[in-house]
Amino acid sequence: MIAKDNPNKCFKIVLIGAGNVATHLCKAFKQAGNEIVQVYSLTQKSAGALASKLKTNFTDSLKKINPSADVYIVSVKDDAVSAVLSQIQLKQQAIIVHTSGSVPMNVFAEKFKNYGVFYPLQTFSKGKKVNFKNIPICLEANNKKTVQALKILAEQISDTVTEIDSEQRKKLHLAAVFSCNFSNYLYAISETILNENGMNLDLLKPLIKETAGKIKKNSPRKMQTGPAKRQDLKVMESHLKLLANHKTYQEIYKLLSEGIGKEL
Amino acid sequence: MIAKDNPNKCFKIVLIGAGNVATHLCKAFKQAGNEIVQVYSLTQKSAGALASKLKTNFTDSLKKINPSADVYIVSVKDDAVSAVLSQIQLKQQAIIVHTSGSVPMNVFAEKFKNYGVFYPLQTFSKGKKVNFKNIPICLEANNKKTVQALKILAEQISDTVTEIDSEQRKKLHLAAVFSCNFSNYLYAISETILNENGMNLDLLKPLIKETAGKIKKNSPRKMQTGPAKRQDLKVMESHLKLLANHKTYQEIYKLLSEGIGKEL
Repeated sequence: MIAKDNPNKCFKIVLIGAGNVATHLCKAFKQAGNEIVQVYSLTQKSAGALASKLKTNFTDSLKKINPSADVYIVSVKDDAVSAVLSQIQLKQQAIIVHTSGSVPMNVFAEKFKNYGVFYPLQTFSKGKKVNFKNIPICLEANNKKTVQALKILAEQISDTVTEIDSEQRKKLHLAAVFSCNFSNYLYAISETILNENGMNLDLLKPLIKETAGKIKKNSPRKMQTGPAKRQDLKVMESHLKLLANHKTYQEIYKLLSEGIGKEL
Repeated sequence: MIAKDNPNKCFKIVLIGAGNVATHLCKAFKQAGNEIVQVYSLTQKSAGALASKLKTNFTDSLKKINPSADVYIVSVKDDAVSAVLSQIQLKQQAIIVHTSGSVPMNVFAEKFKNYGVFYPLQTFSKGKKVNFKNIPICLEANNKKTVQALKILAEQISDTVTEIDSEQRKKLHLAAVFSCNFSNYLYAISETILNENGMNLDLLKPLIKETAGKIKKNSPRKMQTGPAKRQDLKVMESHLKLLANHKTYQEIYKLLSEGIGKEL
């Protein structure tokens, strides 16, 4: 267990997973002075690719996980977490965490002594650099010492470290789906509409940026504009007609406009 | 008519309307060295408030619109444009434009000689400063000389001036509703979910910013992430359960997830 009074402690870390979250996280951990002692992935190829970037060891066998690390970070698909855990044997004092927004912490409860969740609240894409300093990291752990150790680790890479419980984390992840995944889909719809009419998404990018920027200091409820907010039925009717060839977009337009009309 | 060979021409401008778009536009026009000769609004109070900021004259009567200006900018609610135009008398050489994304240009055709559309593609809120330099301005006019004059005026305040026709403008406005109005509503939904569970939208703001920023260089189609993209049915099912008390949000979650599943 990592002592609280040693904030500069370098952790020995094993990464279990080589996807986007794992890749970005372990680069940040390494940059902060920690030691990535091993990377595991289901395939030799992806484990090897990430390990060579980090100049460390790799394995494609959970039986060969290095037992000497301080922290084990499980960053695999939600569905795979349980199966992965069933095959791992750790020393009692080791800490094991996952990075998922949806998997409850008690997935670790039966088998491990010190465990928790290390959930970085950001969307990661391959090839797009990420500055962790501005990314909130939400922590949960089963005992105080583990929380403290995770805090030390998290604060090495982020300026916003928060403790939330598993129920809150589920809700937070749900809210993120609305703000991030669904907003991005709306951008994609806009792009389709523009491209079909000889225009480019570039025209909308300043507007998209401003819309996301406006809520920095104001509640989005106060910032709502547009035909649905004004209940401008004529414009809404004409927009629905323009979407005649896109039934799904038409449904989305209707439902979101109704929602805005009802509550904003 | 403004000469093409005089790009530094200062225009005499009358603002018809005192809402958000009118307010931000005329501040920018004035700052660029033009003369706002009059502001009209339906109520003395709002006309007077804006006029006093601009140190200019105002009226609440369309009969008293100053006839000596170069450009008349009609920036009122879409539904009100026709009624406003029916009461205005201008000199033949004057240019009249509206600023709407939805109103076709031919609303001017019967009564005016030089007319067009001056559509700044941005969301404006009272009290939030706007830098027009980065705001695309979409122009349309009924003759070349008017286009040229509007271009000179637009380029005084914006670095992105584009000509698009009325059909394109309608589609552009529709696309903007998806990217801007609807995204903002999704942010509001997120805020509700977070507040109901003892959390704050601040946690999501870096993610929202990153999501809007990621599409600067990449098509949103390529940037899509999340449970619907992965077709992670278990997570989607659990999210729908969490929304049991918000039937509208539940419907929105379903519909947008289906859309992502179908096409991204």
